[in-house]
Amino acid sequence: MASYFGRTVKVSTFGASHGQAIGGVIDGLPCGFPVNLETLQAFLKRRAPGQHQLQTQRKEADIPEFQSGIVQGRLSGSPLAFTIKNTSQRSGDYDNLRDVPRPSHADYTARMRYGEYVDMRGGGHFSARITAPVCVAGGIAIQLLESIGIHVRAHLAQVGTVPDTSIDYTNPPMDKLASISTEAIPMLDPVQRHTAEQLVLELKTSDDSTGGIVEVFATGLPVGMGNPNYDGIENRLGATLFGMPAVKGISFGSGFPGCASRGSKQNDPFIITDEGVRTKNNNSGGIQGGITNGMPLVMQVGIKPTPSIYHEQNSVSLSNHSAEVLQIKGRHDPCVALRAVPVVEALTALVLLDFVLEHDPHVFRHFSHPALEV
Amino acid sequence: MASYFGRTVKVSTFGASHGQAIGGVIDGLPCGFPVNLETLQAFLKRRAPGQHQLQTQRKEADIPEFQSGIVQGRLSGSPLAFTIKNTSQRSGDYDNLRDVPRPSHADYTARMRYGEYVDMRGGGHFSARITAPVCVAGGIAIQLLESIGIHVRAHLAQVGTVPDTSIDYTNPPMDKLASISTEAIPMLDPVQRHTAEQLVLELKTSDDSTGGIVEVFATGLPVGMGNPNYDGIENRLGATLFGMPAVKGISFGSGFPGCASRGSKQNDPFIITDEGVRTKNNNSGGIQGGITNGMPLVMQVGIKPTPSIYHEQNSVSLSNHSAEVLQIKGRHDPCVALRAVPVVEALTALVLLDFVLEHDPHVFRHFSHPALEV
Amino acid sequence: MASYFGRTVKVSTFGASHGQAIGGVIDGLPCGFPVNLETLQAFLKRRAPGQHQLQTQRKEADIPEFQSGIVQGRLSGSPLAFTIKNTSQRSGDYDNLRDVPRPSHADYTARMRYGEYVDMRGGGHFSARITAPVCVAGGIAIQLLESIGIHVRAHLAQVGTVPDTSIDYTNPPMDKLASISTEAIPMLDPVQRHTAEQLVLELKTSDDSTGGIVEVFATGLPVGMGNPNYDGIENRLGATLFGMPAVKGISFGSGFPGCASRGSKQNDPFIITDEGVRTKNNNSGGIQGGITNGMPLVMQVGIKPTPSIYHEQNSVSLSNHSAEVLQIKGRHDPCVALRAVPVVEALTALVLLDFVLEHDPHVFRHFSHPALEV
Amino acid sequence: MASYFGRTVKVSTFGASHGQAIGGVIDGLPCGFPVNLETLQAFLKRRAPGQHQLQTQRKEADIPEFQSGIVQGRLSGSPLAFTIKNTSQRSGDYDNLRDVPRPSHADYTARMRYGEYVDMRGGGHFSARITAPVCVAGGIAIQLLESIGIHVRAHLAQVGTVPDTSIDYTNPPMDKLASISTEAIPMLDPVQRHTAEQLVLELKTSDDSTGGIVEVFATGLPVGMGNPNYDGIENRLGATLFGMPAVKGISFGSGFPGCASRGSKQNDPFIITDEGVRTKNNNSGGIQGGITNGMPLVMQVGIKPTPSIYHEQNSVSLSNHSAEVLQIKGRHDPCVALRAVPVVEALTALVLLDFVLEHDPHVFRHFSHPALEV
Repeated sequence: MASYFGRTVKVSTFGASHGQAIGGVIDGLPCGFPVNLETLQAFLKRRAPGQHQLQTQRKEADIPEFQSGIVQGRLSGSPLAFTIKNTSQRSGDYDNLRDVPRPSHADYTARMRYGEYVDMRGGGHFSARITAPVCVAGGIAIQLLESIGIHVRAHLAQVGTVPDTSIDYTNPPMDKLASISTEAIPMLDPVQRHTAEQLVLELKTSDDSTGGIVEVFATGLPVGMGNPNYDGIENRLGATLFGMPAVKGISFGSGFPGCASRGSKQNDPFIITDEGVRTKNNNSGGIQGGITNGMPLVMQVGIKPTPSIYHEQNSVSLSNHSAEVLQIKGRHDPCVALRAVPVVEALTALVLLDFVLEHDPHVFRHFSHPALEV
Repeated sequence: MASYFGRTVKVSTFGASHGQAIGGVIDGLPCGFPVNLETLQAFLKRRAPGQHQLQTQRKEADIPEFQSGIVQGRLSGSPLAFTIKNTSQRSGDYDNLRDVPRPSHADYTARMRYGEYVDMRGGGHFSARITAPVCVAGGIAIQLLESIGIHVRAHLAQVGTVPDTSIDYTNPPMDKLASISTEAIPMLDPVQRHTAEQLVLELKTSDDSTGGIVEVFATGLPVGMGNPNYDGIENRLGATLFGMPAVKGISFGSGFPGCASRGSKQNDPFIITDEGVRTKNNNSGGIQGGITNGMPLVMQVGIKPTPSIYHEQNSVSLSNHSAEVLQIKGRHDPCVALRAVPVVEALTALVLLDFVLEHDPHVFRHFSHPALEV
Repeated sequence: MASYFGRTVKVSTFGASHGQAIGGVIDGLPCGFPVNLETLQAFLKRRAPGQHQLQTQRKEADIPEFQSGIVQGRLSGSPLAFTIKNTSQRSGDYDNLRDVPRPSHADYTARMRYGEYVDMRGGGHFSARITAPVCVAGGIAIQLLESIGIHVRAHLAQVGTVPDTSIDYTNPPMDKLASISTEAIPMLDPVQRHTAEQLVLELKTSDDSTGGIVEVFATGLPVGMGNPNYDGIENRLGATLFGMPAVKGISFGSGFPGCASRGSKQNDPFIITDEGVRTKNNNSGGIQGGITNGMPLVMQVGIKPTPSIYHEQNSVSLSNHSAEVLQIKGRHDPCVALRAVPVVEALTALVLLDFVLEHDPHVFRHFSHPALEV
Repeated sequence: MASYFGRTVKVSTFGASHGQAIGGVIDGLPCGFPVNLETLQAFLKRRAPGQHQLQTQRKEADIPEFQSGIVQGRLSGSPLAFTIKNTSQRSGDYDNLRDVPRPSHADYTARMRYGEYVDMRGGGHFSARITAPVCVAGGIAIQLLESIGIHVRAHLAQVGTVPDTSIDYTNPPMDKLASISTEAIPMLDPVQRHTAEQLVLELKTSDDSTGGIVEVFATGLPVGMGNPNYDGIENRLGATLFGMPAVKGISFGSGFPGCASRGSKQNDPFIITDEGVRTKNNNSGGIQGGITNGMPLVMQVGIKPTPSIYHEQNSVSLSNHSAEVLQIKGRHDPCVALRAVPVVEALTALVLLDFVLEHDPHVFRHFSHPALEV
């Protein structure tokens, strides 16, 4: 279903950009786990708008109010439900869009799919605002995974045409990735980061936008986790990550460039290490046949340029069937890829947590059954 | 589940590379539709091995025997089940692989996931041989879609480093794509095709391999089909296509390169045409917010270099925990991307048929109810 | 997943008996439909506690606050989310239950499943309190179905040992069922209703409880709706209705008694009527092979005696592994079957709406597309 | 989907009563388990037709041919696929049924659902013949469960109006149930069994039929297995068992009769035993809140009278819209409930195996990883 994903840990998000509230429900989280709400809020802040000049100036505190599922700071076994109030809507900015759809937005397709009464102010439930509840769910998933030694970290591998330094896939610098995570542009290389900032500021000034590539790593995953064919790690990551607004492509390991290379270069020979069987390279991105192989998971997510630009654009009037020239108002990010980094981490963590609990439903048992002897 | 996909049209595949038979079951196909078995067999031939020197020399006729679901040439409403006999196994080639896994194959991860008795001769049920049943199901889906004016066609956008000519995404040459579909290398540009052939032959000679990019187009789709968030066209295509062996990346429209561009260039302005609202460009690849917009669907699928190469490779003995040098035997494609083209068409057609039937379950009613007045 | 059901219309409920709030999310409702909130509130009142002396004296207003999915009184296409505040918890009544589980409640199994931190005050998320959000979702489903001529109505076929008058399954008295729906005991026969009231009052006085059988009818369903085997009308009704607390049995048409009868009496011969093909009897309960046959749907749902009784009962201390005598406090219904009637209607309507939208996704199109010509 | 069920262990069945073959695919079975094919064939024989005079005289050997998933007698990790040839079709018996549907069969609803080309000879894919593949899958599930101490056994609690002796739900006689399983009428009480035989023979002579109630028990289940709300043990058993032809009702523990009783009698007080916490009675049938409580699972399945009777019956011509008198030919069971007993065991075992693997995916690890140290 549209607004749901996950199997063992099932996540549902709701709300629209300009409605009263957005929120989510997460079922299947392990009972007894103590959620660190400060860490969660810090994670949400990485995605929240209005933090600095490279972002949209819409300001939202993004503080989740938990309705159920958490008692005295611990997950209680029942579905975790929360709402986040919308506080900074300016719906008037969208009055002209009911009839004249914005290019490369979902205005037109939503209208064709849902009809006349669909609420598309600010993008409605297609809006990137819905990634706030995703980050609440994902922030908790990250805490759960970290408690068992699994880490999920991302950087911007590319902003527009500006690449970050390339990363050794066999040993991604997880600590460094953590330390840059609160940067406006989470790139490892400070020089490239500066170049990217200049690009984004220039685009903001010129009323244009660009995209980027978020690259995410997960370490500490159990070996032999996942499934072949249509239910592998890539399948479920792909299905979920394409649910993030603006995603145009998903790849693993050496990705599309690796497809142009040769088997003799791309293959990952096996080696014996102190920790067991590993591979010398990691062009496979930690997965073979849908199943983890003990190497870090590596995934790239391509984010398109923000379609909301202030240039005049050609569009049509749906009621008159006539050509129209559209001038978008509102507050927008010149590069949504910047704020997409924690969202990619959140969705990746949720999918991996789902697999982890499928692989071993009792892996968090020390939280739920600290004392009870059965 | 691993070997299943689809919702309204549910496909299951079974079998292993070196077992007695492979096959599949398809539930939810519209009753009464007359399947053209000759057209189906011609489609299967495009994928079948041993057709020419650029491919593996394993020969399989790939003739499906239908066990149920088809009566007097028409779909009968009950699940369509079929088997395809394996005839050309040479399992002896795989004797040494039980203990020494092939690099970048699923041998090791399957062993870790399934244990000691997993049958991985020839790749077991991770083998690309399982794409034969996919093509039976997909070949029928293509016939169904064509009967209502929806066409699905692919080409090789790239073989190794050799690109095909680029295609106008607003108006892909569906007839030309049909006419090149039986080429050993289905590229539009004959010069590039020749260059690619030389590359593949050179790799065959040098015991190496390469990958490629399959690009697929679908025209004639209804507007407003699909869903937002986690159940859109991209989500389900992504989930399914990553189920194809060797797929490393999936992208839509202008894909990863488009992510480095600018909003002012990437946006698809709306225009009025004789057929209704369309867009001037098609960088979105026919989808916005998970929902079709009336433009051709465009998807790229990155296929990694065949991991089976005849070079000596480093591996390990799982029983001895020692380093080993591995020399792969068997018969293999120097570039599996070549035979992947019909498989991409098949899976794409199956996912689209699923959406089409969700969008309008009665779209094939003229086949099932030609006379009955209710 | 535990707290979710439905396919095209997906319902999720959350909250625990003694948490801050309960609520739900419904995805897939047709955009544009005007919800009558007064009618909805009247429906909720039928289930709400504290209405009269035959019920628990816990009082809850059960007023849903909509967080998203409804704009100016119409469904907006995005997931409908709502919360209902809990106002009348008396959690102190449950202090002794953490260690000493109540017989025939989920206290013990929840503890074994979820561990020490599971919040089972008042039954936690196993509580019948969770049927309030079910009635919000179901109340809207009923309004949608009624707009297309489908009616869902239930009565108490039995309270304890007291049966209601038997109903003609070929022509259930839908209007009369509507008129008795606000009775404390919704039985058709006023004499039997009075007898049942006396029974319930007697049980209340004697600190005991009983169960009952809710029988539900649906008329106006399209013919040929549903699926064979594991996805028929009964399958999905069964899967969903067993999700209601205290349900011990589900049957269709002539049910278990019909199984003791003979084919010559039980078969439903076909007849021609002005409305088309119908059957003379309706022992099949409107379904054959999982598919509607044009006759009213008939289902019975058996509800066990309320397990919360004020008698002293034997139990055990989970920490001490010792026998204990338990005296339950709190406020409880002597017969939960009474308040189960609207819940059965709600769940039945939700499952049928799911099938209706699968059968024809465009059946509510006049609400969503009143003007737009495509 | 119609012909699929299960989550971790996914079962698909295919085929029609008068097609070439029937069969099934099972995905998710634990690799390495040695299947005892003789035991399996003996189990299948309990369901197979033509075994004695109380049954239909259609004879089918029901020998599965495995196409994949089993290598040298062990489950190989890939989907287990098999076909069973149909050998004894007499399709001519059904010629007149295309236009004149049999009362209380799916002929009419299938026609309305699937249209003119649906193959309903012998009931098509709605036929009880499809329970043969169910028994192949279930027979293997039973072997797996038995290997870990879980036993599933059923008897006929009632044939027509003739009840079997009632069973102590806290301690069902599993060995006795095993010993009567090959009886033509698997009842525990030999006197009642004889009475039931007389009834069935009388019905056979008088061209009539009856139904019955199958009662199934499962012992040895882990405590705390299952889920609340819509994904409990009852939900998934209900969803699956209603997929069996002719099932009209499903109940648990004390079932519908228990709903007329009182809480003080129905509640199951907790006691301490040598094996841990248990209950004194077992009116709950081993489940509370969708989760196992350590007591035997108890379920009743009501089977309607065989609708195929040789009396003249009223029907209609679908083409002429006229009344018709129908005389059924063919070979039929006077009481399908007799052959339903192993089918109920099979489906119950498959659903329980699904839950067992969800509860602990590694429970069969000693079969898959006998030697490999990781």
